Order: sequence, then C-alpha cells, then structure tokens
Amino acid sequence: MKQINIFDSTLRDGAQAEGISFSVEDKLKVVKALDELGVAYIEAGNPGSNPKDLEFFIKVKALELKNAKLTAFGSTRRRDITPEEDANVLSLLSADTKVVAIFGKSWDFHVTDIIKTSLEENLKMIQETVSFLKGKDKEVVFDAEHFFDGYKSNKEYAMNTLEAAVSGKADSLALCDTNGGCTPDEIYEITKEVVDKFKEVEVGIHCHNDSGMAVANSIMAVKAGATQVQGTYVGFGERCGNANLSSLIPTLQIKKGFHCIPEENIETLTSTAILISEIANVTLSDKEPYVGRSAFTHKAGMHIDGVNKAPHSFEHINPELVGNERRFLMSEVAGRSTIIKKISRIDPSITKDSEETTRIVEKLKKLEYYGYQFEGADSSFELLIRKQLGKYEPFFDLEYFKIIGEQKTTENQFSSYAMVKVKVDEQVEFSAAEGDGPVNALDKALRKSLEGFYPKLKTVHLTDYKVRVLDSLGATAAKVRVLITSTDGTAVWTTVGVSTDIIEASLIALVDSIEYKLIKDIENRYRTHK
Amino acid sequence: MKQINIFDSTLRDGAQAEGISFSVEDKLKVVKALDELGVAYIEAGNPGSNPKDLEFFIKVKALELKNAKLTAFGSTRRRDITPEEDANVLSLLSADTKVVAIFGKSWDFHVTDIIKTSLEENLKMIQETVSFLKGKDKEVVFDAEHFFDGYKSNKEYAMNTLEAAVSGKADSLALCDTNGGCTPDEIYEITKEVVDKFKEVEVGIHCHNDSGMAVANSIMAVKAGATQVQGTYVGFGERCGNANLSSLIPTLQIKKGFHCIPEENIETLTSTAILISEIANVTLSDKEPYVGRSAFTHKAGMHIDGVNKAPHSFEHINPELVGNERRFLMSEVAGRSTIIKKISRIDPSITKDSEETTRIVEKLKKLEYYGYQFEGADSSFELLIRKQLGKYEPFFDLEYFKIIGEQKTTENQFSSYAMVKVKVDEQVEFSAAEGDGPVNALDKALRKSLEGFYPKLKTVHLTDYKVRVLDSLGATAAKVRVLITSTDGTAVWTTVGVSTDIIEASLIALVDSIEYKLIKDIENRYRTHK
Repeated sequence: MKQINIFDSTLRDGAQAEGISFSVEDKLKVVKALDELGVAYIEAGNPGSNPKDLEFFIKVKALELKNAKLTAFGSTRRRDITPEEDANVLSLLSADTKVVAIFGKSWDFHVTDIIKTSLEENLKMIQETVSFLKGKDKEVVFDAEHFFDGYKSNKEYAMNTLEAAVSGKADSLALCDTNGGCTPDEIYEITKEVVDKFKEVEVGIHCHNDSGMAVANSIMAVKAGATQVQGTYVGFGERCGNANLSSLIPTLQIKKGFHCIPEENIETLTSTAILISEIANVTLSDKEPYVGRSAFTHKAGMHIDGVNKAPHSFEHINPELVGNERRFLMSEVAGRSTIIKKISRIDPSITKDSEETTRIVEKLKKLEYYGYQFEGADSSFELLIRKQLGKYEPFFDLEYFKIIGEQKTTENQFSSYAMVKVKVDEQVEFSAAEGDGPVNALDKALRKSLEGFYPKLKTVHLTDYKVRVLDSLGATAAKVRVLITSTDGTAVWTTVGVSTDIIEASLIALVDSIEYKLIKDIENRYRTHK
Repeated sequence: MKQINIFDSTLRDGAQAEGISFSVEDKLKVVKALDELGVAYIEAGNPGSNPKDLEFFIKVKALELKNAKLTAFGSTRRRDITPEEDANVLSLLSADTKVVAIFGKSWDFHVTDIIKTSLEENLKMIQETVSFLKGKDKEVVFDAEHFFDGYKSNKEYAMNTLEAAVSGKADSLALCDTNGGCTPDEIYEITKEVVDKFKEVEVGIHCHNDSGMAVANSIMAVKAGATQVQGTYVGFGERCGNANLSSLIPTLQIKKGFHCIPEENIETLTSTAILISEIANVTLSDKEPYVGRSAFTHKAGMHIDGVNKAPHSFEHINPELVGNERRFLMSEVAGRSTIIKKISRIDPSITKDSEETTRIVEKLKKLEYYGYQFEGADSSFELLIRKQLGKYEPFFDLEYFKIIGEQKTTENQFSSYAMVKVKVDEQVEFSAAEGDGPVNALDKALRKSLEGFYPKLKTVHLTDYKVRVLDSLGATAAKVRVLITSTDGTAVWTTVGVSTDIIEASLIALVDSIEYKLIKDIENRYRTHK
C-alpha cells in the first residue's frame, strides 16, 4: 500500500481561523490527539512569531510522540542578510524539532510587489535558508507559497523556486494553493508536471478552500503523484479554511487504498473531530463529511427503506468504519452497540436486548434532544447509566441555593456570592462563599458545605470550564451546555450540564463531578480490600 | 459564452436536510429569490408526496417568473402498471409546470434488490414514463439515480437506462452521484463518455457532498461537457448536503467564463445566500466559500499587509464581485494601518502618526491582553475609539444592579431575577424582571428601564449570544468573553464584554449594544436633516 504522509497544520494554519485561539494547554491536547490518530507531521506553530508558541515548544518536549514528527514553521530569511543573521530563522532552531517547514515565494508578483526584492535574491533566500537548516540536521519541508498562481503567471520562475529549494537539499516541496482559487484539473496538471520533474524529492500539496474544492484538489494532486498531504483537522483555517483532513484521510485510505494512518485508528476519525472541535470551542458542523452528526442521517422515506434493505444503497461507506453512526430521523433507531459497551462496564450481565438497555437508550435520546452531548463527558454518561440501573445512591441532597450578583456603586465594583444548603444523612450544612462570578462562588460554597462529610473532596479541583451556547439565535435566553473537567491529582473526569440558565447548567455539571469522585472512591476502596 | 443551465433543487433535495422544513410561504419566498437571481430551473417539490407541495404548486402560479422554469419532481411509474395508472405520475401533471424531472434507477443492484423488479421492466418504466410526460407537452429531465455507482457495477446496464430515457424523448439526462461517494477523476471520465455518446440531449450533473467534493465533482462534469448543473443554494441537503450553487455559480461564471445567471446578478450571490439561510432558519457558515462572513477576512499580519499592497495577493477574487466584503480582524497581529481606517471613519482628520492613534493602539493592546478581542465586535471597537477621541457622551448611568438566582425547593425549580437602577438626565428609573437565567433577566430589566427615555430601543432585539471561556484552566474563576449580536430590523451590530464574572461580561456587551444603537440613531437623524 502506497504511503501518503499526512501533514497536519491545525495548530498553525488552523489557528489563523477567525474565532480560534489555542492556549498552550489546548495545543498540547491537540498534539496528543493528532499523534494518537497517527498523522506523520504535526506543524505546531511559529516560534519566531510569539512567546506563546515558544512556551509551547518547551512544554511539548515532555510528550512522547508515538507516530508524528513535530514541525516548526517559519519563512525563508529576509532579503539581503544571511540566514544566521535572521532572528526568525534562528528561532526555528530554538524550537528544537526534527522537522522544519519554511515557506518562500513562488509567485513573481509577490516577490517584486509584496516583499519587494529581486527575483534573483528570492531564489537565494530559498536556497540559502533551506541549506542552512539542512546544515543543522533538520528535515526541511519547503512550502512553495502561491505556487499555482505563480505557475500561471510565470511558469519558469515558479519552477526555479522549487529548483532553488531542491538545490538547498529540501526533503519535500509542498505546492500551495494559498488563495484557494484553483480547480481540480489545474491542480492535477500542474502537480503532475512537478512530480515528473523533481523525482528526487517528495512532493506535497497544501490547499485552501476558497472555491469549496480544497479536498478535491488535494485528491487530484495525489492522483498526480503527490505523497504528502497538508491540511487541518475539520478544515480550520483563515477565510474559508484549509483542506479538511477528516474528509481526506478516509477518502484516501478507505476508497483509494493508500496508507495514511494506522488502520485501527480509522475508526477514531469521528471522535478525534469532536475532540479537536471541543478544544477549539467550535461547533462541529452536522453536515461535515464522514464525521458530522448528519453524515449518515437519513430523512427521506425511500432512503430509509433502502438503507434498511441494504445500507450501501444510500451510504457511500459504512459509518462504523470512521466511528460515526447511522441515524434515521423518522423511525428512531439509535446505535445500541456503542451504548451497550459502556453499560457492560458497569453491569456485565446486561445485553443489547435487555429492558434496561431500552430504557437507557430512551433516556439518552431525550437528553440529546434537549441539548446534551456525552461525547466529551463520559463521567456524566456513567452516572446516567448508574441511575437508570438503580446502581446509584445520592451522596447528598442539595436543599437550597441562592446566588447574588451585584454592582454596589457606580465605580464598577461587582461582587458575587452563593449560599448553599445540603443534607447528608439527615445532617444539614449551610455554607456561603464569595467568588469571581456566580459560578465560581457556587463551586466554592458547594465544596465548603460537603468537605466536612467527605474530606477527600479537598483534593479535587476543576481544571477546565467550557461554555457552549446552543441555538445561539435564542440569544440570552438560549440554552447553554457547560462542560467541567475535574481532577483529584490522579484521575481526570469531565461532566456536563444543560440549561437555559448558565448557573443551573454549571450546577448540574458540578454536582455530577462531585458524585463521580465519591463513587470512584468507594469503588477503589472495594477493589483494594478485595 | 457557453450557457450552463443552473438547476436549483433547494426546495426539493434541499428540504431533505436535517432541521430544514419549508412552509408554503417560505417556498414562495425562495422561488422569488432564486428567480431574481436568475437560475434556469427551480425544482420546487413533489406534488405526489404531500399536500403541502400541492398547495404550493397552486399558489406559485400567481408569481410571474422572469428567469426560471418551475419544475415538479417525481419518479418513474411503479412496476407492472402503465403511467396512466400511477397516481404519482398523474400528480406530476396536476402541478401544471412546464418542466418535470423524474428519477429512475440506473444501478442494477437497486433495481433487483431495492425496488425488486427485473432489469428489463425498469427500462420500460423509464422509457414509458418519459414518453407519457412528453406526450403531455412537458420538458422532461431524467434524473439517473446512482448513475455513477451503476456505471461502476454494470456499465452496460447503466448506459441502457439513459438510452431508455432518450428513446422516450427526454430533453436532458442528469447523472446523479446519489451517495456522494465519487471522486473528481471518476466523475470526469464517466460524464465524458455519456456526453460523447448522447450528443442529441443535454447532459446534467447532480452531486452530493458525502466526500466533501460535490462542488469539484460538478466542475469536472462541466469540463467533460455537462451543461446542466443541479445543486442547492448554500448546499442544503440530506446527510452532508448537495452541490453548493453559491460556490458553483461564481466559479463557473467568474473563473471559467460560462454564462450561468445574468451578469449583473453575480453581485447578489451573497445577499441571496443570507436571505435563503434566513428563510430556512439556518445559520450561514462564516467559512462558506464566496458568500460567508469570513470568506475574505484576513487575520495573519503578513496577509493583511499583502492585501493592503494588492488585494489579489491573498484573495482569489475581488469580494465585491459576489457582493461580499473584505474584513481585517482586529487582533494582536493587525497593524496600525487597519486601525487607522476605522478611526478615520469617525474623525477623518486623524492620521497614522496622530497622538490619538497612539493612545488608541495602547488602549487596544491593554484590552487585548486582558482578554478582549474585537474581531467580530466592530461596534464595541467603534465605541472604544469614540471614548478615546472624546466623541462620546453617555446616554445613561447604570447606578445599581442586582441579580438573584435561586433554587427554591428540592424540586429543581430554578428562578432568576434582575433589578436595575438607571439615571438619565437626573431622572432615576428602577426596573426588575424575571428571565431564563440571570443574563436574560438582566437584559430584560435594562431595556425596561431605558425604553421610557429612548422608545426606539423597543425595536432592538438580540439575535446571537456567544460565550468563550478564556484560559479555561482557570475553571469557574476563569475570564469569559461574551459576544452579543443585536438588530433593530435594519442594521446588525456586535459588541463584546470580558470579565471573570459572566454577568458582568454580558452587562458590558449589553450596555455597548444599547449605546451603539443610540449613537447611530443620532447620526442618522443628523444625516437626514443635513
């Protein structure tokens, strides 16, 4: 099986998308997810562009990557100096990655009119920068910016820029449709010419989606012989985004027979898409090919009938291959087998056809309709199963709570307080706390009131808090989904709450978090004593 | 210029999308919009499938269409009866349209295993139904369902189904990639063979987006000689949607030199996309090629610099051609030149080197460091500039507010209230409101207290509310950024607030929204009186 090297730029080109801003912690999570998936390269940022990326490159060294090579991104040296004199080129070395990707200009107009130098000097900038980095033992990817526009404007010069990179000993040439304006036939023909000419290096493709054809353009480049495919997960990127790897990987591997990622990971494509969207705080489009919630959802009666007779009658692939599931909008038949896996972890005696399974599926459907999503909130889902199976005993009753937020003077002094009354075994505890906002105050008050009963809760703190407005057209009356991640220093768990009231949604997730911790403590005690 | 006939199926295949349901009034509005745009065919529904469509076909006769031919959709007759005996075929006539599109089976497997008849009978069903409709003076489009899958499974039979339609005197053959699983090279080669073989009829293409390539596949079919392009506006459709006409039309007409719609209407592509999304009650994706809000939005500093020197350096077309606009995001990477453009709209005397510009840039940096981001919140940025320039007079003072959220019993009854005291020209107004959560309550109370002073605020309502947790590691004590979009029915504006307290962040954005509206009202009055 021919190998296609997947070059992921979610953390670099993807971070150029409007509304996306990754923290260092976010970036580390994305690196882990992409490495687990098994891409070949993770382009993770530009160490020269900002201190946040520099901090990331230091912290990322603690991760042991199984599949991917970490890649730093920068540009060719500036005009009229040596690479050694260019702070940005030097900063690429400070990232301490095996691979470095540098972009250079391949469109003559950009050389003369944008960076304003001579065509000759630009060739030197490419050749010398590649050569300098190769001298430092780096694997070098040369991103030929605007290569296709350059080829159309001045073919000979565009080819010369590739020649310059090759003579500097670049390991691969990535042809970029930077403005995203090309069509598949153009991409095929031009890529083929490059592949035929530069047999000694790998040729890559880097497409943008401004004409809605980035995925198809990348496929056509592979047909023409490109073996490195650059893109971003779920297509994040500036303007209309980059080529979408969650569409490209399954098309290449399942349909075209190439090897992109370890075969057993293909079924994690959907969960990876959900996870990366969550980290980026972006709603994954339902219509997203392969990984979207509606990608295998059938509404037309004739289609449902056909799929019931033979799934491939109206499905281009089996949704389970990519970890997605079939849904029928009219006659609801949910993916029982996925749910049964989770149930059997709590009670192995329960089967697909048990009455309890039906009950849990019904409850789940109701909650999903209401706005819940348990993909990133396994712990809340476990609590839900326990409640349905009767394997749940509440640890406390929340008898009353009140939050107050107030601006006392016109001097903009805001204060938030919470009061909480809980009952444990007939014993009542009342606590109050002040916080940074009402949710924080509530969190503090709730813990305070329970720690006397359950001292182990003192080890728990929240590590992540996310808010997603559902149906944002409802504006301030819209439902919100809150995800809370907690840790006790050993385990990490995530819980979810949904309500039109952000306080209530947060409270539901907070209570789940505490209960989950208390259940696990009992289970562990039992296990230790066994 | 070669003509490409745009065949819009927004109201038929588009209505199969999850979450989309058009009322009869909605459908009439969409017909008007598409006819104004100038598509050749509007496939508007299946009169045999439901009474709503039948009612529509009666009402639509009152519209005088300038460009489009209305088309009714149905299928070939059922097996073993005549077309005259098939109620669905007869209902196609009752729609009283000039054009009728009927689909038939081109994939042998579907004939034998899904509709369970003989291959021979299926050919008769096609030929006889087309012939019957031609006898009733209809223009007939034959949709060859699953044509590409059929061709791959049994090429000879797939071609025979087209032959059957042609012998029935069909006017055009639309080749359907019903499951959306084909790649551009396959589509090109197979379409080319059909075009070469059936020279006497028009060949069309109908693609679905299950592999993310529907637009590219359609373009490749046109390259192969297809002259009818079927799709839906903004790509609505079952599963991953249909080929997106708002991407296809500009690519074909602006880049490939075909004639699809009247030249002067190309600049209405964006407003048509917004309008049809509004009617369908679907949020138009910011990333949508050509027509999305971010389609020509630049964030990277180098891109902004390039576009300022020459727009085509990072834009595949001029956004004005399709009625869209260029935006520069106000982020850390945006330079002074972007900011000065916004300042000069308020005070043209201020230059890049003015002391005021320095002050605004400093303020902007401070706020961005704090967590503000003005990309997407132009109106708050305008208020910021006004305040720095002394061109701002507060319309009201918020003297006091208090929010209360409380769970009264253990029965999970949550309630939220807000109290607000404002002062306008020494007059004090105190209001209270109950809401879906504290933010909604605050929003209501604030408006209530101000509407007496500023009656025009009654026209304002919020259309979008977004929450982003910044540095989510701070958990419930983390800062949040709130974005609020408001409208008065004519203008739309977005404001932003940041705080560790979600209530305060929302309040800041709410107050900005109200002040922005009041400032614009004064400006407009001034302009009218000038």
